[in-house]
Amino acid sequence: MTHYRRVVDIAARLSSGEGDFVLFAVTPPRKSTPADRLPEIARATVERLEHLDLDGLVLYDIDDESSRNPAERPFPFSPTVDPAEYRTGYLQQWRTPVIVYRAVGKYRGEHLRSWIAEQDPRRTLSVMVGAASSDASPDVSLADAQAMCAELNPDLLLGGVAIPERHSRRENEHLRLIAKQEAGCRFFVTQVVYDLNAAKNLVSDYRYECELRGLAPVPLVFTFSVCGSMKTLEFLRWLGVDVPRWIENDLRHATNPLAASLEQAAATAVELIDFCRRLEVPFGLNVESVSIRREEIEASVELAAQLAAHLRRQPT
Amino acid sequence: MTHYRRVVDIAARLSSGEGDFVLFAVTPPRKSTPADRLPEIARATVERLEHLDLDGLVLYDIDDESSRNPAERPFPFSPTVDPAEYRTGYLQQWRTPVIVYRAVGKYRGEHLRSWIAEQDPRRTLSVMVGAASSDASPDVSLADAQAMCAELNPDLLLGGVAIPERHSRRENEHLRLIAKQEAGCRFFVTQVVYDLNAAKNLVSDYRYECELRGLAPVPLVFTFSVCGSMKTLEFLRWLGVDVPRWIENDLRHATNPLAASLEQAAATAVELIDFCRRLEVPFGLNVESVSIRREEIEASVELAAQLAAHLRRQPT
Repeated sequence: MTHYRRVVDIAARLSSGEGDFVLFAVTPPRKSTPADRLPEIARATVERLEHLDLDGLVLYDIDDESSRNPAERPFPFSPTVDPAEYRTGYLQQWRTPVIVYRAVGKYRGEHLRSWIAEQDPRRTLSVMVGAASSDASPDVSLADAQAMCAELNPDLLLGGVAIPERHSRRENEHLRLIAKQEAGCRFFVTQVVYDLNAAKNLVSDYRYECELRGLAPVPLVFTFSVCGSMKTLEFLRWLGVDVPRWIENDLRHATNPLAASLEQAAATAVELIDFCRRLEVPFGLNVESVSIRREEIEASVELAAQLAAHLRRQPT
Repeated sequence: MTHYRRVVDIAARLSSGEGDFVLFAVTPPRKSTPADRLPEIARATVERLEHLDLDGLVLYDIDDESSRNPAERPFPFSPTVDPAEYRTGYLQQWRTPVIVYRAVGKYRGEHLRSWIAEQDPRRTLSVMVGAASSDASPDVSLADAQAMCAELNPDLLLGGVAIPERHSRRENEHLRLIAKQEAGCRFFVTQVVYDLNAAKNLVSDYRYECELRGLAPVPLVFTFSVCGSMKTLEFLRWLGVDVPRWIENDLRHATNPLAASLEQAAATAVELIDFCRRLEVPFGLNVESVSIRREEIEASVELAAQLAAHLRRQPT
């Protein structure tokens, strides 16, 4: 099999509602990191990822979600560098477009307005995320931020968040996606998927609701990760990820939990790819490392490599 | 590929805790059926099934479950011929062992005692089912029936019912199975499986709990069926089967729902087989037709044929 570098322009693809791309998501370093270490951290990230055939990089914007979940956070919260600043300051040499998350509740309106206005829509996309809890009263709401984009930079491709677990509880996540789509979202990114059944239910309900309304479904970007320890699993659950019991048991009893998790995540992704293709729902893949342990990051990179190879082998 | 008839003695297999067999389940005709029609109905069943490589036949004992579910039954309840009488009277020419269900709450103690005492354990196995609702006060409880077997016919292989959906709600079905196993159950038969994730969770929790207690897991027999219409799907749900939304949507929008359902059931079975083999949990397969529509019965027979062929191709 010949290895070739795919040239996939995700901005062009998403503009026409197409999927079939692979992203890797990174959380910027902690704010407490000495400024002189940031360049080397960014360089290490680029070196780790540049050999992959990635179509885009995702930069998360971590908000303190303790207002969302009263249970103690398994890993303590620590504020991170603003993803927009991290990208501008340290990731200029990254060659593909970057999807910059903005937890809109964290920012002053003026700050967000000027950032939106400055972006080149061929190089930057954004996922706007509302406040973590409904009792927060932020300066900028999600609707405000969407309106700013429409006014100041209408070509900027906006994405939203999709949560299959919420669909399991309330059975209306597909309607939320369609409402966001009507408010301008051109793609959706899920949280980490461990519950394949919940993801399939959301894809299916979304697809048929779109058909009923005469809408074209926009790409659903499924996030995958590996889980190498019970601590990481506990953190996934704290984040609201439904991890089925059988997967927990597999990991708990595996000789090499990280290898088992990698295999299991790849199998889940492949099954979801097949499902989306059968239902003709455009999709993308996103890989992140939930943990900051070196082995788990490396296994995530390996997962992204496997998924990129899978997509290359089976072009649509 | 050479076709050969497997010789699998399920009584011998179950005695030594082994699985890898295929059953087909049949509900006896309605009690209202004229007696002179019973022989031809039984003959049609045998003719329909004899070309399959079945390792056993299951005869259900239908109880009026309206006490279990207050919602209106999609198909009206109609009492059926006693499966023990049907077997003795009309299915003598069936060549493999028969697993006769006994809804113990329906019978007088004397009747059940003599039936148990008379059975040849190489030809008959039984699944004893307790009363449908806990507010019933039957003449014979499940524990009574189990005690009768131990006293009167200790070689008679007894099975129990396993409900993955109950595990989804209460997370203790594996403990119930182990308690039944300690009370003498040598295998378990599930209700129809549509929720693969729930089945995997039960298999996994059961397997690791057995390991913890130093018990060998007994065969779990997974039941599969096809669903060719929304009416059948509604009935499955009434029976307590969790049918995922995506499967419902698939069927609702399929050009040929029955063909889609057959394909989907076979895929679910194959995935569960692989899962059980990986976890070293012995398993069996059981196919039934939930509906009495001719096309759905024929598709169930086709499903059993496919699953038997799959097991033959991949012997353990």
